[in-house]
Amino acid sequence: MSTVFETQGRRDNSASPLGQASITGVTITPVAFADPPLLNTVGVHEPYALRAIVQLHTDAGVTGLGETYGDAAHLARLRMAANAVTGADPFNINDLRARVARALAADSTQGGHGMSGMVTGSSTADRVLSPFDVAALDIQGKLLGLPVSALLGGAVRDAVPFSGYLFYKWAGHPGLADDEWGAALDPEGIVAQARRMVDAYGFTALKLKGGVFEPDAEAAAIEALRAEFPDLPLRIDPNAAWTVETSIRIGRRLEGILEYLEDPTPGIGGMAEVRRRVRLPLATNMCVVSFNDLPPAVTGGAVDVVLSDHHFWGGLRRSQTLAGIAETFGLGLSMHSNSHLGISLAAMVHLASATPNLDYACDTHWPWKRADEDIVLPGALAFRNGAVTVPAAPGLGVELDPEALDRLHRQYLASGITERDDTGYMRRIQPGYELKSPRW
Amino acid sequence: MSTVFETQGRRDNSASPLGQASITGVTITPVAFADPPLLNTVGVHEPYALRAIVQLHTDAGVTGLGETYGDAAHLARLRMAANAVTGADPFNINDLRARVARALAADSTQGGHGMSGMVTGSSTADRVLSPFDVAALDIQGKLLGLPVSALLGGAVRDAVPFSGYLFYKWAGHPGLADDEWGAALDPEGIVAQARRMVDAYGFTALKLKGGVFEPDAEAAAIEALRAEFPDLPLRIDPNAAWTVETSIRIGRRLEGILEYLEDPTPGIGGMAEVRRRVRLPLATNMCVVSFNDLPPAVTGGAVDVVLSDHHFWGGLRRSQTLAGIAETFGLGLSMHSNSHLGISLAAMVHLASATPNLDYACDTHWPWKRADEDIVLPGALAFRNGAVTVPAAPGLGVELDPEALDRLHRQYLASGITERDDTGYMRRIQPGYELKSPRW
Repeated sequence: MSTVFETQGRRDNSASPLGQASITGVTITPVAFADPPLLNTVGVHEPYALRAIVQLHTDAGVTGLGETYGDAAHLARLRMAANAVTGADPFNINDLRARVARALAADSTQGGHGMSGMVTGSSTADRVLSPFDVAALDIQGKLLGLPVSALLGGAVRDAVPFSGYLFYKWAGHPGLADDEWGAALDPEGIVAQARRMVDAYGFTALKLKGGVFEPDAEAAAIEALRAEFPDLPLRIDPNAAWTVETSIRIGRRLEGILEYLEDPTPGIGGMAEVRRRVRLPLATNMCVVSFNDLPPAVTGGAVDVVLSDHHFWGGLRRSQTLAGIAETFGLGLSMHSNSHLGISLAAMVHLASATPNLDYACDTHWPWKRADEDIVLPGALAFRNGAVTVPAAPGLGVELDPEALDRLHRQYLASGITERDDTGYMRRIQPGYELKSPRW
Repeated sequence: MSTVFETQGRRDNSASPLGQASITGVTITPVAFADPPLLNTVGVHEPYALRAIVQLHTDAGVTGLGETYGDAAHLARLRMAANAVTGADPFNINDLRARVARALAADSTQGGHGMSGMVTGSSTADRVLSPFDVAALDIQGKLLGLPVSALLGGAVRDAVPFSGYLFYKWAGHPGLADDEWGAALDPEGIVAQARRMVDAYGFTALKLKGGVFEPDAEAAAIEALRAEFPDLPLRIDPNAAWTVETSIRIGRRLEGILEYLEDPTPGIGGMAEVRRRVRLPLATNMCVVSFNDLPPAVTGGAVDVVLSDHHFWGGLRRSQTLAGIAETFGLGLSMHSNSHLGISLAAMVHLASATPNLDYACDTHWPWKRADEDIVLPGALAFRNGAVTVPAAPGLGVELDPEALDRLHRQYLASGITERDDTGYMRRIQPGYELKSPRW
């Protein structure tokens, strides 16, 4: 059984004049792509990561592309939203937002945020809106002959720098062959992983996903990275695995070494306490994940840097509002990533290029994806000196590969995975595995 | 001597493909238009109001229009900015902003804010950027075949409601014939003015410019308006003429009558004190006039409603950032006006139409302008039931009238006015006139 979803009335033609178009239908295709056993504080990545590919069809001869989480509850909401936006004007993002909000107003289901228990407070309406906003901008750009960056106010940089995203990991998934990266379970393994990643991609900043081993071991990994890469900005993200006390102790150990310390401890109150007692900027994509979180974060002095993510901040235009808020309230701005494919990378690059105050290298899981697994045709996106050149072609500048979409959809069906569940997967491997936050 | 300013290289042609254009030159034309003797707490409107009309010429066959203050110091800064944006891409608003900021960085002159001492803290860079942002969006829309509202995310309303802006006024300028409106110096005069304005324009809300007479007399005018117009939302704006104590006393008198109380008293501290003690929403375009004012206003709980104004908030895109901040921090959003012409009205209408949370009727001085004095061709903008239909034509949807521009420019030269000076004009009429804030 196919789980591709299509709204009524799907058709593509080119009947409309420039600047006028209607969304005639939506196709939502869940896909799965191979993912290595990357460790984090709630478990380990499953053998496949899920995404949903959203196509907005129009009566103007173009199709817009969006990419979002692939969890079952999220897919159900995307379908509600798809019905609501069919017939809408892709040039009216405000109307799309209102339609999505109305469609979701009656929905009381939970879950499906695609982040495996690590981010639960993000706005459902913004999470669902995101791929429609991106796809609408893709349509606009294609019809107008403009890259999405121009629709967002214009690129202020030709290329967007990313950080090399380091993970503790096993050599391979249990029962399967080792992957090409091998194990990284101590400082030496992390340094070797970083060396390989920097050599291959040219990254000019490094981030370590922490919260896996006891905190001093992870601090030692950061110190080893500093010794190996004296000039690269370094970050660690334990995903709130540390108590306030541990955060202060490890934070102080890493003062002068880290560019920022990301989500050491849970909650705005805990973060504010750590921030008062450690001379490091604190960054977050856990305690400030929606517009509702901004007033208490600003009032409480909880964070220095917000990691934006258009997938849960309502798309590209709403992420620009976040950027304006960050500028106004003196917050730094960086960018968060989950496992993703090329549509998301293109959207991230356009957004970052048109956001003057996004002045940190962005996160990306890109190197962990197999080079031969994507739903966009190769060639449009490439890393050079750790940065991706902003596509100049109309819209997002990436083209859907229908064969690959079908292949990764069949992989989704075959995988049997319908919800990201790092903890459940870990428990199948280590039955006594305990979920705990903070862990240390 | 003409005071029209033109940058080098001015030329219009249509050499560039869709979505690509360069600004080849800028023309800045100061103009003056007749203005009645409207009274406020710093004096009285002079016989002519000043504006500057900004034309951005391109190599793509279109010219973009912007409108801003006409004061001499502002004109000087506009010229610096004009030189800086010549050669730039009108599709890159971010770059325009950076160029204007750089051009102004070396400038240390003061004044020229066009608001006669009533708003002094607005951002010079945002004030200068504004007409270039508007004109660039006009160019984009014209080239893309889209109304500016679509470039701003899409209209959520077809027509934008405005409030009828009532002023105490003399029958005419001293030494000149009475104007068509006649005197309004007491509650009866204000009610008669309101009746005429509502009958002519259909306004569905009313605002009284206060701070002119002693506060109880102005409260009595509001009460008379309530009696005459039981269903219309009412506002009063004394431009910070009242002490905190007076604001509380008059505010309490008008509880249940006013939609909001605008800038009763100076400063964020005073406003916050009034707000704690009066059960009325407080609005401002005086203590929150730039992005720098937002953090203390939010922290201090000073206001309920921010009156946006794209002329000092950096244009239309930056005003949308303000709208996002208002939404995020639970502030209401309305719109401020100075004496203006048709380009500004068009820009205000597009912005308001594409700002979902701009849910108050906007201010406009429009009725105080002579019907035969504008620099845009008639027909594009009309009031119906107190609202202006959003132009659907490409860009702002208004067309420059070169003959009228020349006529109002010659009027500017003949007027001898180079700075708005309500206080100086009042002192020429009433030599003992004293400037005082708060006055009561």
